[in-house]
Amino acid sequence: MDAAEFRRRGKEMVDYVADYLENIEKRQVYPDVEPGYLRSLIPEEAPEEAESYEDVVKDIERVIMPGVTHWHSPYFYAYFPTANSFPSLLADMLCGAIGCIGFSWGTASEATLIALLAARSKIIKLIQADHPDRSETDIISKLVAYSSDQAHSSVERAGLIAGVKMKKIPTDNKFSVRGDALQKVLEEDRAAGLIPFFFCATLGTTPSCAFDCITELGPICNAVEIWMHIDAAYAGSAFICPEFRPLLNGIEFADSFNFNPHKWLLVNFDCSAMWVKKRSDIIGAFKIEPLYLKHDHQESGNHSHWQIPLGRRFRSLKMWFVFRMYGLKGLQAYIRKHVGLAKEFESLVRADQRFEISADVVLGLVCFRLKGSNELNETLLKRINNARNIHLVPCQLAGKFVLRFAVCARTTESRHIQEAWCHISHLASELLQELPH
Amino acid sequence: MDAAEFRRRGKEMVDYVADYLENIEKRQVYPDVEPGYLRSLIPEEAPEEAESYEDVVKDIERVIMPGVTHWHSPYFYAYFPTANSFPSLLADMLCGAIGCIGFSWGTASEATLIALLAARSKIIKLIQADHPDRSETDIISKLVAYSSDQAHSSVERAGLIAGVKMKKIPTDNKFSVRGDALQKVLEEDRAAGLIPFFFCATLGTTPSCAFDCITELGPICNAVEIWMHIDAAYAGSAFICPEFRPLLNGIEFADSFNFNPHKWLLVNFDCSAMWVKKRSDIIGAFKIEPLYLKHDHQESGNHSHWQIPLGRRFRSLKMWFVFRMYGLKGLQAYIRKHVGLAKEFESLVRADQRFEISADVVLGLVCFRLKGSNELNETLLKRINNARNIHLVPCQLAGKFVLRFAVCARTTESRHIQEAWCHISHLASELLQELPH
Repeated sequence: MDAAEFRRRGKEMVDYVADYLENIEKRQVYPDVEPGYLRSLIPEEAPEEAESYEDVVKDIERVIMPGVTHWHSPYFYAYFPTANSFPSLLADMLCGAIGCIGFSWGTASEATLIALLAARSKIIKLIQADHPDRSETDIISKLVAYSSDQAHSSVERAGLIAGVKMKKIPTDNKFSVRGDALQKVLEEDRAAGLIPFFFCATLGTTPSCAFDCITELGPICNAVEIWMHIDAAYAGSAFICPEFRPLLNGIEFADSFNFNPHKWLLVNFDCSAMWVKKRSDIIGAFKIEPLYLKHDHQESGNHSHWQIPLGRRFRSLKMWFVFRMYGLKGLQAYIRKHVGLAKEFESLVRADQRFEISADVVLGLVCFRLKGSNELNETLLKRINNARNIHLVPCQLAGKFVLRFAVCARTTESRHIQEAWCHISHLASELLQELPH
Repeated sequence: MDAAEFRRRGKEMVDYVADYLENIEKRQVYPDVEPGYLRSLIPEEAPEEAESYEDVVKDIERVIMPGVTHWHSPYFYAYFPTANSFPSLLADMLCGAIGCIGFSWGTASEATLIALLAARSKIIKLIQADHPDRSETDIISKLVAYSSDQAHSSVERAGLIAGVKMKKIPTDNKFSVRGDALQKVLEEDRAAGLIPFFFCATLGTTPSCAFDCITELGPICNAVEIWMHIDAAYAGSAFICPEFRPLLNGIEFADSFNFNPHKWLLVNFDCSAMWVKKRSDIIGAFKIEPLYLKHDHQESGNHSHWQIPLGRRFRSLKMWFVFRMYGLKGLQAYIRKHVGLAKEFESLVRADQRFEISADVVLGLVCFRLKGSNELNETLLKRINNARNIHLVPCQLAGKFVLRFAVCARTTESRHIQEAWCHISHLASELLQELPH
């Protein structure tokens, strides 16, 4: 394919993409296929001879689309949103063409792990300054990190990777970690000879979008040199609206902060933005410099010391396109619209006596359930997802099996919310009628 | 921007991308700007009101391009190639539109670290099976991993992250690790009470494209249950050509293998392909399962247990486009063309008595230098890069400062090689004339 053919094929692909996104709600949101479905549809080996582009394109609908979960469908209410916008798609086309490996001036990701490793490296240096004879492995064996019992599984995995103990702090009835809960565990652990060094606070937890109380937690961490990392992966985007900024109170105590513009800020996956209070803490943890990577602006801008992979895509390009094409007002309107849709869904649930709301609805997530057993709710969820009209995932809150309804798609409108509720309500009626009285 | 406008703007972007790639050699390969140049060109804050797409597009040339290193220019001979092809760009457009978060059926990356962590987890379980009283941290403190003294800096960093000792094995006069060198270090370390558990072999090192002798190393590792990971990031693509397959002899001893199709297989950055002999070793090292990620096909296809991030882009789409649109023959022809161009450059260097070749030219990399001091060669490289016509990076081989000439761009032709050599030779003449006799 030469540049001339790319011009033609690229324009066809633009139309295909526009068609796909304009008509996405006509597609079944969640696929019917089983793992392995692809195996019989594609040959065992890569083709010997080049194929025609027409043949490849034909296979998109035949081979690929049957296996796709349509994350941008307005019937997708699972997990949290993943962003999608036309400016971001345009920027990504350009990003692909430039195709530079941004290890000199890139962005940061894998934020929790990076923060944990930086904190680990910092505490080791600190202790060895006073006790030069203590080995690194001896210190690591005493280290302990903390997070909410509601924190994302990636936090636990970060502990696993770094080889340090990771403890979960119990949350209050709003699913938030409070100062006294952390204080209690710290005292116990210190008495047992452990060295607390890292706390990962969550603003907007995955199960229920709960907010850890960082105004209480921050001063405790700061006083005893525990690194406080804030994971605001989903909720972080909402802080561009003044009315949600109070949720960020206490941020001044944080050592690092991360949110994912690819979740709720219209920047296509993947794009994760991390901030660190003292950059030397991060750089010091990763710096390794072979000759082939040495260059003149080492100190000022080399972000390869800020992350695990050496290279990064040119992701800032799509943020730049999106920020400019929407403007702050457009982005704020987008966040507010999603929150409004979640509130609309919440009202529908509250108006139905058979259901209950399981956690405060603060942003775009509604946690709800049928009043009744966990089995009942598991069955309801199974029927919702088996019907394939909409897609939800569950969570566990205080021992209860709960359904999570996350407003995800860029194109979700009130009518989709009403339709989703109708569908859920209908399936609930069917289920409840089957039960013995 | 609605879908209708996206159709128009997308087609303009396709033309921009085609224009960019068709005319890339007219652009200066390496930028003149200093870090921070961007700051004065863009506003301090995101715009309050949405801007017009025209304004954004105008800024691509005004703001972005002056800072870009044009990795796809035929004057770029630094590092190793990063792939670029029209089919891959088309697939990436589709990938962006589908925008699914592939944590269920994705691909794997961060391969060295993943392999190291899997090996660490495996050895800990193995030792604890015999000695249930030995703590994980105690075992980790005795672990030791190995790589070539020529291995990529990311290998050293993996050791740093995993908190295990990482030792470099000295290489022979071809810059390869040999069996006896590893054996010697293993014996010393065992005598010192350490536990060897991981060896990262490199096929195609970054400095000189050297190949560790895995036919010797593999049996040693297998005999004593040391995990052998193969990093073939660059050279791996070449193994699609039968004539380069002997470089892969000994692969049957490997526990894991990784190469980067985004380097030399025409699949745009990023795309890294990892193979593992026993998948339970990898899955066991990472498995953490919150309710919101549970689903029906847990065991068979959930690749989020195979990697560090939870989500992945739909990268296989671009491999699929590229494999089909080039066919095996097209891909082989591409590899062979690059190797041929490197050989052509090697001949030019060898024909000039002032220069020497510093390592065998096996694939697309030529390591060369002026006969003379390191300072002389550092000055030559500085002048080459300051002139901005072509871009190279150096390496160190056996204490010598060496220039690396890597054939990188998809569009590199013989005339670019001749031109690059003319330019280097001319700068060398100027430099040598300035020296006192």
